[in-house]
Amino acid sequence: MSLLVVGTLAYDSVETPAGKADDVLGGAATYFSYAASFFTPVRLVGVIGEDFRAEDRALLTDHGVDFGGVVVGGKESFRWAGSYLRDLNIADTRETHLNVLEGWKPKVPESYRDSKFVFLANSPPALQASILGQVDKKAFVAMDTMNLWIDTARSDLEALMQRVDMLVCNDAEALSISGEGSLIKAGRKLLEMGPRIVLVKKGEHGAFLFNREFFYAIPAYPVETVVDPTGAGDSFAGGVMGYLASAGLVSEEHMRRAMIYGGVVASFTVQDFSLEPLKGIAREDIDRRYQEFLRFTAHP
Amino acid sequence: MSLLVVGTLAYDSVETPAGKADDVLGGAATYFSYAASFFTPVRLVGVIGEDFRAEDRALLTDHGVDFGGVVVGGKESFRWAGSYLRDLNIADTRETHLNVLEGWKPKVPESYRDSKFVFLANSPPALQASILGQVDKKAFVAMDTMNLWIDTARSDLEALMQRVDMLVCNDAEALSISGEGSLIKAGRKLLEMGPRIVLVKKGEHGAFLFNREFFYAIPAYPVETVVDPTGAGDSFAGGVMGYLASAGLVSEEHMRRAMIYGGVVASFTVQDFSLEPLKGIAREDIDRRYQEFLRFTAHP
Repeated sequence: MSLLVVGTLAYDSVETPAGKADDVLGGAATYFSYAASFFTPVRLVGVIGEDFRAEDRALLTDHGVDFGGVVVGGKESFRWAGSYLRDLNIADTRETHLNVLEGWKPKVPESYRDSKFVFLANSPPALQASILGQVDKKAFVAMDTMNLWIDTARSDLEALMQRVDMLVCNDAEALSISGEGSLIKAGRKLLEMGPRIVLVKKGEHGAFLFNREFFYAIPAYPVETVVDPTGAGDSFAGGVMGYLASAGLVSEEHMRRAMIYGGVVASFTVQDFSLEPLKGIAREDIDRRYQEFLRFTAHP
Repeated sequence: MSLLVVGTLAYDSVETPAGKADDVLGGAATYFSYAASFFTPVRLVGVIGEDFRAEDRALLTDHGVDFGGVVVGGKESFRWAGSYLRDLNIADTRETHLNVLEGWKPKVPESYRDSKFVFLANSPPALQASILGQVDKKAFVAMDTMNLWIDTARSDLEALMQRVDMLVCNDAEALSISGEGSLIKAGRKLLEMGPRIVLVKKGEHGAFLFNREFFYAIPAYPVETVVDPTGAGDSFAGGVMGYLASAGLVSEEHMRRAMIYGGVVASFTVQDFSLEPLKGIAREDIDRRYQEFLRFTAHP
């Protein structure tokens, strides 16, 4: 089924203990849509600058990402510079240049409004909320967020949480939004705040799924060397939503499969900078790691 | 089959964000043997002071822990005081009083020497090595260690690692012993250093099992509130070794089951101070969580 994502496309400059990369393709919606497009076509709503490279656009469109909702909003694309030198799990932001993001009001094209699966990548909650009026009320809607909005736009965030089906966030965000001291309590509290499914990403430690009927925990697919964690969480969400949209159904069984797919796609993303690792793989590679994961975690 | 453990019995004073407990029963071999005795009788070799309380001895012996290898070595038992106020995963030691531990030379009673499963709880590696000459050469031997010995007795530690079947350590120790930057690399390296099985405990994030034939990863059983993490790692090891000894065989299937049992026993230990949670449960409670764990982690 049709999958829509709204969020950022960016150029990133990243430094990690393994090296650095300047001005490389990044952005939450970029990682999400490339990851999801291994499973299903993706409709992308975002804003880029005139400097957005033709080859980057082709990379996405050639992989099943429709650019029909991407507008050119000015000269320069959104830019982020950061490092993970202190801790591979924590990005230290050096510079953020909003550029075309400033004043951007995302508009969902008419032809995208029947999308049955919608992902609101990390953005100000009010902006994310503006999408909900532009899509099918029966769509399965998932959202991501970040600490900035938890700290500065909490009431918008809480209002939005009551309108979505699924929240995807990392462990620190889960604790911060819920105000709880343990992830297990946080998961329960977040469910009370609105979404019927809560996915908590724990990086190298895997992920938790909370809903009212069941709890599901998976370790991460084991990666020998993490080169750059940028985009891992968005790739995870892309794998989850891409698989769900391809299945067309959010059952317990499909949610469990989706979590494993999300983890597997993210395990590729961290193995090099930008979208390099994803460019080099096909759906068969994902399925191979999926099967390996089942063996690594098979109970007697 | 018979399970022997050599290690410390202690009185602990512990402070955590949830509260504090003074002069309560602790020690690696204490937690290990109580945890293991849910599965199989345990033979304990250790040293206590004249102050060791009769009710603490009875607690263990009534639960299937044989005190035939525990000697009274002086007035005062080993005492440890510490807190987890900074981080629930990291103990800050306030005081250590070796007392009867000083100069202790553990002696395995004649009647224990046929033990088929042996656990060398955390102690100086040279002391751990002295046990190996006193037990059946064909016994399955597992060892724990700590950063103190990694830093101060590395050559003894490396020599010992070549003589044991299994190393049980936490994530920080795995990185430190191996000198690697990722747990996956560390696991491989540790196997090259001697043991044919390496268990890496990751606290709330579960555990990894490495050996030459397979890799196994489990999340932790989800605990809402961790009151005191003291003894969790020793309880994990106790559950693992207790189950293996009861099975009498170290097959892949039994190792996977043992890991889950270890995680489940540890999930009880952290729910209150000292051995309080373990005192309140029976084997059926462990089996119930084992089944819950299978559901929490069941793949589609």
